Amino acid sequence: VSPRLRKALALFGRLPGVGEKTAHRYVLHLLTASGDLASELGRAVLELPTHFAPCSSCGNIAELAGATSAQCAICTDHKRDAKLLCVVARVTDLMAFEKPGTYRGVYFVLSGLLSPLEGIGPDALPIAQLLKRIQSEQIREVILATPATVDGEATALFLRREMQALDVTVSRIASGIPHGGDIEFIDSVTLGRALEGRKTL
Amino acid sequence: VSPRLRKALALFGRLPGVGEKTAHRYVLHLLTASGDLASELGRAVLELPTHFAPCSSCGNIAELAGATSAQCAICTDHKRDAKLLCVVARVTDLMAFEKPGTYRGVYFVLSGLLSPLEGIGPDALPIAQLLKRIQSEQIREVILATPATVDGEATALFLRREMQALDVTVSRIASGIPHGGDIEFIDSVTLGRALEGRKTL
Repeated sequence: VSPRLRKALALFGRLPGVGEKTAHRYVLHLLTASGDLASELGRAVLELPTHFAPCSSCGNIAELAGATSAQCAICTDHKRDAKLLCVVARVTDLMAFEKPGTYRGVYFVLSGLLSPLEGIGPDALPIAQLLKRIQSEQIREVILATPATVDGEATALFLRREMQALDVTVSRIASGIPHGGDIEFIDSVTLGRALEGRKTL
Repeated sequence: VSPRLRKALALFGRLPGVGEKTAHRYVLHLLTASGDLASELGRAVLELPTHFAPCSSCGNIAELAGATSAQCAICTDHKRDAKLLCVVARVTDLMAFEKPGTYRGVYFVLSGLLSPLEGIGPDALPIAQLLKRIQSEQIREVILATPATVDGEATALFLRREMQALDVTVSRIASGIPHGGDIEFIDSVTLGRALEGRKTL
């Protein structure tokens, strides 16, 4: 492998989840793809920081329009309930909550989860920033919408504890049988949670 | 999502295996990564077609040096046995065979496998080019090194049949227990192949 190719592969390898094999696949695809994919994608990547930045309030992708500060379309939408804050692990989780269009609050993206096994402690996440925002913006309710995994649950528990001293309602999204889920094939942890979280009709 | 962001995401989505979520992750990572990743990667992608092309003989990534035609470092290495041809599905498989450094023949990259279920027939692969190369370069032996999967085996069988009329030895890489593999945990198909392929000591 030539130094120049090695450098291109290393740059692709800095994208999350991209190893040597995926980098090779990308490079080869860019060389064989129809149209002008390499120049179009190259230009788009080059210009990304000119047009976008992480939202200074929530971490979502914000489009930079002129000299205004980096705030995303959700944080600047005054029809939203700015006192209702949904805490998610990733921007893609935020997108998932936005799809049904029913949630009208705002978000906070952690950009990760606590994971003792991977050495990700509280200091690696913007928890101080989250707590400060809850206070300074007088948030009414925080919805902990981290995933129902070991790390997601641990992060939710940790955040709830951190927020105990604050004057804010803290809730956790429901865990149970997914829509269309057949009882027979659901794992026992989920079934246990579905029973625990039952509601009187 | 703004039109400009949608366009950037769509361009990433044209890379193999990249969906909406991965594209989002890449964009966000490029906006938050330390250093100048976006401009470095953008420039590298932009310049890829200037410096590289698929090798005209084997399909490997070839570095373009001046006005010479696109042939990769393996195909232009005169110390290699140009009459021994190893047929692989992907460039990454070629790299895997190159790692130990013991194979001294050349390669042919199919860039895929026959897959009736995915609608990939013989016409979608450069099989005519492979057969022509075997004849015109008087290949002595073709090693079919497609993976030991359903599609990989089917492709190897198909290629063997296509090569029957040609004056060439066709071999298939061995299938059996991997190095370090414990008998107890090996699937029965692999065990069957290991027995079938046994060698007298």
